[in-house]
Amino acid sequence: MKRSPSMTFVVFLSCILSPLFILTEFAAAGQNQKVEKWDFYEISLDGPTSGNPFVDVELSAVFKNGDKIYEPDGFYDGNGIYKIRFMPVSEGIWTYLTKSNRDVLSGKEGRFECIAASADNHGPVRVRNRYHFEYGDGTPFYPFGTTIYEWPYQSQGQRQLTVQNLKNAAFNKARFLAVPPWRQQYIEGPNSLDCFPFEGTSKENWDFKRFNPEYFRRLEKCVLELRDIGIESDLILFRPYDDGKWGFDMMDNETNDRFVRYVVARFAAFRNIWWSLANENSFMDHFTDEDWDRLFQIVQAEDPYGHLRSIHNAGRIYDHKKPWVTHVSLQYYMAVRSFGISPMLRDIYQKPIVHDEINYEGNIGSRWGQLSGEEMVYRFWIAYIGGAYATHGETSSGRPYGDGWISTGGELVRESPARIAFLRKIIEDGPQGGLNPIDQYYIPNMAGRIGRYYLIYFGKEPVKEWQFRLPDDALRAGMRFKVEIIDTWNMTITPVEQTFEVEQLNRYEYVGKNNSKVELPGKPYMALRITRAE
Amino acid sequence: MKRSPSMTFVVFLSCILSPLFILTEFAAAGQNQKVEKWDFYEISLDGPTSGNPFVDVELSAVFKNGDKIYEPDGFYDGNGIYKIRFMPVSEGIWTYLTKSNRDVLSGKEGRFECIAASADNHGPVRVRNRYHFEYGDGTPFYPFGTTIYEWPYQSQGQRQLTVQNLKNAAFNKARFLAVPPWRQQYIEGPNSLDCFPFEGTSKENWDFKRFNPEYFRRLEKCVLELRDIGIESDLILFRPYDDGKWGFDMMDNETNDRFVRYVVARFAAFRNIWWSLANENSFMDHFTDEDWDRLFQIVQAEDPYGHLRSIHNAGRIYDHKKPWVTHVSLQYYMAVRSFGISPMLRDIYQKPIVHDEINYEGNIGSRWGQLSGEEMVYRFWIAYIGGAYATHGETSSGRPYGDGWISTGGELVRESPARIAFLRKIIEDGPQGGLNPIDQYYIPNMAGRIGRYYLIYFGKEPVKEWQFRLPDDALRAGMRFKVEIIDTWNMTITPVEQTFEVEQLNRYEYVGKNNSKVELPGKPYMALRITRAE
Repeated sequence: MKRSPSMTFVVFLSCILSPLFILTEFAAAGQNQKVEKWDFYEISLDGPTSGNPFVDVELSAVFKNGDKIYEPDGFYDGNGIYKIRFMPVSEGIWTYLTKSNRDVLSGKEGRFECIAASADNHGPVRVRNRYHFEYGDGTPFYPFGTTIYEWPYQSQGQRQLTVQNLKNAAFNKARFLAVPPWRQQYIEGPNSLDCFPFEGTSKENWDFKRFNPEYFRRLEKCVLELRDIGIESDLILFRPYDDGKWGFDMMDNETNDRFVRYVVARFAAFRNIWWSLANENSFMDHFTDEDWDRLFQIVQAEDPYGHLRSIHNAGRIYDHKKPWVTHVSLQYYMAVRSFGISPMLRDIYQKPIVHDEINYEGNIGSRWGQLSGEEMVYRFWIAYIGGAYATHGETSSGRPYGDGWISTGGELVRESPARIAFLRKIIEDGPQGGLNPIDQYYIPNMAGRIGRYYLIYFGKEPVKEWQFRLPDDALRAGMRFKVEIIDTWNMTITPVEQTFEVEQLNRYEYVGKNNSKVELPGKPYMALRITRAE
Repeated sequence: MKRSPSMTFVVFLSCILSPLFILTEFAAAGQNQKVEKWDFYEISLDGPTSGNPFVDVELSAVFKNGDKIYEPDGFYDGNGIYKIRFMPVSEGIWTYLTKSNRDVLSGKEGRFECIAASADNHGPVRVRNRYHFEYGDGTPFYPFGTTIYEWPYQSQGQRQLTVQNLKNAAFNKARFLAVPPWRQQYIEGPNSLDCFPFEGTSKENWDFKRFNPEYFRRLEKCVLELRDIGIESDLILFRPYDDGKWGFDMMDNETNDRFVRYVVARFAAFRNIWWSLANENSFMDHFTDEDWDRLFQIVQAEDPYGHLRSIHNAGRIYDHKKPWVTHVSLQYYMAVRSFGISPMLRDIYQKPIVHDEINYEGNIGSRWGQLSGEEMVYRFWIAYIGGAYATHGETSSGRPYGDGWISTGGELVRESPARIAFLRKIIEDGPQGGLNPIDQYYIPNMAGRIGRYYLIYFGKEPVKEWQFRLPDDALRAGMRFKVEIIDTWNMTITPVEQTFEVEQLNRYEYVGKNNSKVELPGKPYMALRITRAE
């Protein structure tokens, strides 16, 4: 036990996999350290090991740069080491001063220089224009999520395979659990876990007042691995799926609150963190809506950067209108099976809508994991044409445990990811900031920007011919438009030779002159991209 | 001006049109008066006419029956007359004591006997089982609304025609405005109005601090006429549609609040009142959401009986999750154009969903009033099969003013009302309390009660054959079911001869033995009613 702890500075080597991302410089004197904007700076202090450091010791640091002041909480990382992590949000010199109820941790001062963000670092994602997202630097972020619930709890080889597959796919957000579900395979055999969120090895001997720092260090590594390949970590704090075995979904309020504070203290400085309070929250009868309110408010209060916050539902839907919910994370399959529902959800919630569970492509026995590739891609298009976003997942039967990709990560083997990548390209090439419905009460399969850009998706309708016809807003007779025919399944974009000049049809619509029409191949899953010809 | 006002008892002759409903007895001594439960008792007092009685005089009465205590506000009815209305909610002797800041109105005591409700008086409607409605006596109330926005402001002949048409139709709720929209025809010509909510005749001379009691007496008559034919009055307190002419949608908060209090004091004792705070509320930029919150809370606080409260939206949807909103009154056409949306809205709001504006059947130039009869009936079925309710309206072009029935009432001339009556009969013959989705995440076109009753609606799908197939909940092999084929447009119900015995198909479904099927005529708008064969 150290009685005269020395203060050390450790700048976290922020990239574990990709050396390109080692962006911070270590300076022995602690005065010339440089951290790029939206990376994180870490103070490491030696402190007391007596008593219960997780409960007894309070620690934070006040970081200042001009009039910007942040005070992140620190956390005990075991072995007498205390840490405080901080994500600088502006360039320049930041100074800090620690505060603690322990003298040895209190009053420590220091400074570092925040330098410009590197090219691939766009900062944390936030809400943009009510229904959309953007990075801290203003670059639009269009969520294209996937689901890998248990990937942090797999072997290193499996985790590497997951990362490799993600690198080659178009997903930019991943949903996964901060605590694994109970599985027999996690307690015995080659996949058994040697590390849990709390001290102890089973329900019989958890010490809910002592976290296991090693567990969280591993989870952090996963979050940062995703960061380094451009993927947001939608980290799910609570989940059911314990089957009475471990009791992680049945902890008392005090433990839940402490768990949330600890996770926020450890992870909030990572720019690619999103907080998902729970997966299928209403399956946990143990939690009331008031409990979720309180947990949300803890996250909101403790996270100095305001990372995105939501919660994912089972049958009973938490009220996403509440002010601490930044966006709607929805499980409602019907909402992506018909046109027009996402625009309505936008109008109801006045927040971004992310369809975070829309069933999964695959072949397992459970009906929620049996979508065809076509149906998965259809649901994606239904979401995006409605001005919303969606999250992918795929299943495979016959695995030693779990349901394939959505459980353990590994290999993407199904048909939708390529088509989702194709859709992503279309969205990125579309109006800056994202698609919005154009005439949502009457034309539910159209989105874009009036007068400039119209994306029309025909879904399952095998349309053979489309009369050129647009809602009147922002149109004038004589305007000219180009049309491209998009085959969303075969991933082709075919320009129509003709340019379409419009004239007014009635008080609501313009049509192409001479009753002009677009010929389509009479297959399902086709779309049109209509853009103003300058 | 009376200095020593005498106290008089007036029992309102509650039925204006139908003598069958004259249920209260007048007793000169004021001691043996009888009022049936959920009818209303009215105290009438002479009081001061000096100053501004609408603003200066506070008046209420405490009504007691055992431990039941109510304190409705009174109101000034003009000509030195003050009234307090009370709806007794339990049988027995009720006593009262008036309270006022004017001695002549204060401390008046009296009593009356509340007798049993008569056969057609079921009491006020309230929420039942979260998603449905019932009358005060527990009789289910299944809303089948219609829209007659301006009917109170028409000639007596036109009003009588409206009531006559409603008597012969299946509607049991009517939406109309407590204040007419501005129209040229209302200020000059044969339809001009001689009576407005406030003293004055135009924008130039309204006295917003003085109501016009005669205006409200006429409106009350309309509410009670509907009551007497079994129709709930969904009374809309504020509306846009003033075009800057009268300014009733631009009054200040103080005036709005006073207006709401006055309306509640006058109308709350009528059992068939529902409060709709506004029509298309977000078209009134003048009101913030906080204003609507406040107005809702005034209604909630001032109405002793807790009549139903909602608000009807334009583009921006007020948050119906707020605690003072009893049910969702929605204008969102898409929500009744696809299966599965009403179940989702129920899950989001956890309240009854009433699609109060789903476009109208008719032929006017505006696209919101051009539905075919088939489309209107289709939308009704989509709503009810989703465990929600809907409101009808029909339009006619070429009227001297307004859009036909939805504006001025009069005659129902279109095709949907008969089919809506047919649907109502089916709902009334269905599970007691209303339809609920059975497997809403996967089978959006089915509702009923598991194991007993299944209603399946095929919508526009021209189904020729349906494999007998039900979700597994509450089923066991060997159970037997009857099937009826419903033609929702031609209003026929045809029993299928065969009885279907079920066996388990997979973990989610039972099917009819021997792969049994139901033959259908291959037309749209068909439904199946499947009931357990005892």
